[in-house]
Amino acid sequence: MSTARAYAVSSATAAFGPLAIERRSPGPTDVQFDIKYCGVCHSDLHTARGEWAGTVYPCVPGHELVGIVTAVGAEVTRFAVGDRVGVGCMVDACRTCDSCQAGLEQYCDKRGTVYTYNSPDKHQLGKPTYGGYSSHVVVDQAFVLRIPSNLDLAAAAPLLCAGITTYSPLRHWGVTEGSRVGVVGLGGLGHMALKLAKAFGAHTTLFTTSPGKVEDARRLGADAVVISKDAAAMKAAGGGFDVIVNTVSTAHNLDPYINLLGRDGALVMLGAPPTPHPSPNTGALIGRRRSIAGSLIGGIAETQEMLDFCGVHGIVSDIEQISVQKLDEAYERMLKSDVKYRFVIDLATLGA
Amino acid sequence: MSTARAYAVSSATAAFGPLAIERRSPGPTDVQFDIKYCGVCHSDLHTARGEWAGTVYPCVPGHELVGIVTAVGAEVTRFAVGDRVGVGCMVDACRTCDSCQAGLEQYCDKRGTVYTYNSPDKHQLGKPTYGGYSSHVVVDQAFVLRIPSNLDLAAAAPLLCAGITTYSPLRHWGVTEGSRVGVVGLGGLGHMALKLAKAFGAHTTLFTTSPGKVEDARRLGADAVVISKDAAAMKAAGGGFDVIVNTVSTAHNLDPYINLLGRDGALVMLGAPPTPHPSPNTGALIGRRRSIAGSLIGGIAETQEMLDFCGVHGIVSDIEQISVQKLDEAYERMLKSDVKYRFVIDLATLGA
Repeated sequence: MSTARAYAVSSATAAFGPLAIERRSPGPTDVQFDIKYCGVCHSDLHTARGEWAGTVYPCVPGHELVGIVTAVGAEVTRFAVGDRVGVGCMVDACRTCDSCQAGLEQYCDKRGTVYTYNSPDKHQLGKPTYGGYSSHVVVDQAFVLRIPSNLDLAAAAPLLCAGITTYSPLRHWGVTEGSRVGVVGLGGLGHMALKLAKAFGAHTTLFTTSPGKVEDARRLGADAVVISKDAAAMKAAGGGFDVIVNTVSTAHNLDPYINLLGRDGALVMLGAPPTPHPSPNTGALIGRRRSIAGSLIGGIAETQEMLDFCGVHGIVSDIEQISVQKLDEAYERMLKSDVKYRFVIDLATLGA
Repeated sequence: MSTARAYAVSSATAAFGPLAIERRSPGPTDVQFDIKYCGVCHSDLHTARGEWAGTVYPCVPGHELVGIVTAVGAEVTRFAVGDRVGVGCMVDACRTCDSCQAGLEQYCDKRGTVYTYNSPDKHQLGKPTYGGYSSHVVVDQAFVLRIPSNLDLAAAAPLLCAGITTYSPLRHWGVTEGSRVGVVGLGGLGHMALKLAKAFGAHTTLFTTSPGKVEDARRLGADAVVISKDAAAMKAAGGGFDVIVNTVSTAHNLDPYINLLGRDGALVMLGAPPTPHPSPNTGALIGRRRSIAGSLIGGIAETQEMLDFCGVHGIVSDIEQISVQKLDEAYERMLKSDVKYRFVIDLATLGA
C-alpha cells in the first residue's frame, strides 16, 4: 500500500479539496507511475456533481492520466521505470469475452469493464476506483499505454479520452484519404476529431453554432466550416458525407445531419443528451442506406495505435494548464465552453 | 408500339378498372414479356390512393412482375423468347454513377432510378411508367431478372420486392450461420425475412403484437417468437442480436429493439412511418456501438443473386392468388393485415 495525494469532492455540491487515498502495492503485472498531468473531461464534471446516477463519494475523477513509471511488478515485460506512460478511461475488464478478446474492452460483454474512477475496485473491496486527480496510480500493464517520446506530455493527456473517442469511430467507419467527414461541435472531442480526420487525409467540415469558432476551426484542420443554425449554409454544405461525428451532447435536431450523409453514411453519436433529441426522420435513412450509430472511447490496442499515429503525425490536444486548486473554476468555465480545448491539471501543484 | 391491357385507378378515390396502355416496341436491348403474375405490395396501395405525394393518374401499380419472354431486341444477349423472367421495383437508372457502377441502382447518386410505376418514362415523354397490373411490359435487359426454373412462378413474384428488400439488409449486415436475427412484424416483408434468415443459418426471432401469429411464425422459420407488447417477454428475449430488421411502418417505440442489439448490432428500418417514431434513445447506441439504419430494396445484381439463392433453397413467398377484379377488395384486406402473406394477381384474369 501507498498513500497518494488526491483532489476529491465529498458530495455532489462540494468544492474540490485535498484527500489522501490508498493505492495498492504493485502486483506482479502492475505498473506504478507518478501522474504528471491529467486532462479534465466533461464526464469528470457529470460524475463529480452526481449528474449521472451512482457516484460514490468521496470521488476522485480523471481519466486522461500521463506520467513516469516509478515501479513495475516482477512479471511486467512491457514497461520499465522511467517510461512515459498513460492511462485512459479503463483500468481493467473481464479480458475473456468475445469483445475483450477482440480488443474491444470498452464493450466487454460481461460488463466487466473497470473504469478509471467511480467503478468498483476489485483490489480494494468496497471502494471505488480513484482517478487521475492524484499523485500516483497503480494499473495492470495490460491497461497502460506508451506515450510517444516526441509528444508534449501535458498536451498528450487528452488523447487518452478525447483522442481515442474520436479516433475509434473515424477508423471504424472507414475514414481514409478523400473521405468526406463532418464534425459537429468544436470542443474537446471536436477539435481532436478535426485534427485526426485531417491527418487521415479526409476532407473535413466543422458544424458549429458559434460564428466565433470559424477561424479556430480552420486552424485546427477544417476544410470548411458551416454555421449549423443557417439552413441555407447547411444545404450548401453539399451532402455526400461518409461520416459525421456528433460531439454535441445536448438535444438537437439530427435531421439536417442525416440529410447530409451520402450512401452508407453514418452519423455517429459520441454523447448522450440528458433529454431526448427530437425524433429523427428514420425514413431519410432508407433511401441512402444511412445509419445513426454510437461509439464509446476505444479499446486498449486501438488506443496505443492512436497514440503511435499521433506520434508520427505530431498530433496533441490544444490545452490550457491549470493547478488542482483551480478545478472548481475550470468546471465553471467548461460549462460555458470557455476552454480551448482541454484543461489539463499539472499535478506538481498538488504539493508534497 | 403495342397496346397492353391494364388495371388502373383514375384518382386517389377511384376503384380499379380496365385501361388500355401503350408499351414501346422493343429497342435493341429491350425484352418484352407477357406478365403472368404480379404481387401486390403495400406501396402499390400508398401510390394508388395518393398517400404519398406525386401520384400521376391514371396509375397502374405493380412492381413484382413475372412472366414469359415474347420478344427480344437485336442486341439482347441474356434472354430469349420463352424464358421465365421478372422485374422488380426498378426499370432503369443512370447506370454511370458510383452507386450504379457498384450495382446499387436503387441508391443512384444522380437520382436517376426509374421505378417500375409512377416514374417519368423516358421512352414515352410526359407519361409515367406503368407497372405490372397489365398484360405485358417492355424493359431493358439490364433490369430484367431470371426466375429459377424450379420455383413456382406465381409464388416467386413477391421475391422481386418483398424478397430483395429483406435479403439485401440481411446480407449487407453480414447475417450468416449462427447470427442472431430479429424480425419485427409478420407480413409480406416479415415472412420473407424469416425464410431467408433461416436459410442463411441464423437463429431467428420474430417480434409480433399478435399472439395469433405465433404458430405461423414457427412454421415460417422462427426459432423463437416474442409478443412485443409483453415487456417481460421482450426482456427474456435475451439480447445480443446482430441484426433486427424492422418491417413495421407505423410509429412505435424503437428502444426495446435497440436494447436487444449486441455490440455492433443494427436495427434496420425497412419502412417509413407516416408519423415519427417516439424519439429513440441514442444513448443506448453508444455503449455497444449499435446503429439504427435504413435499407431500400436491393440492386439488380443482388436481386439475381437472391433469386438464385431462393432457387437453390426452394424459397418462395406464401401467397393468395386473386383476379384483377378483386384488387379493391384485396387492398381493403391488406389494410386489415388479412393476407398470408402476399396477394398475387393472376393476369390471365385480365381476359383477352
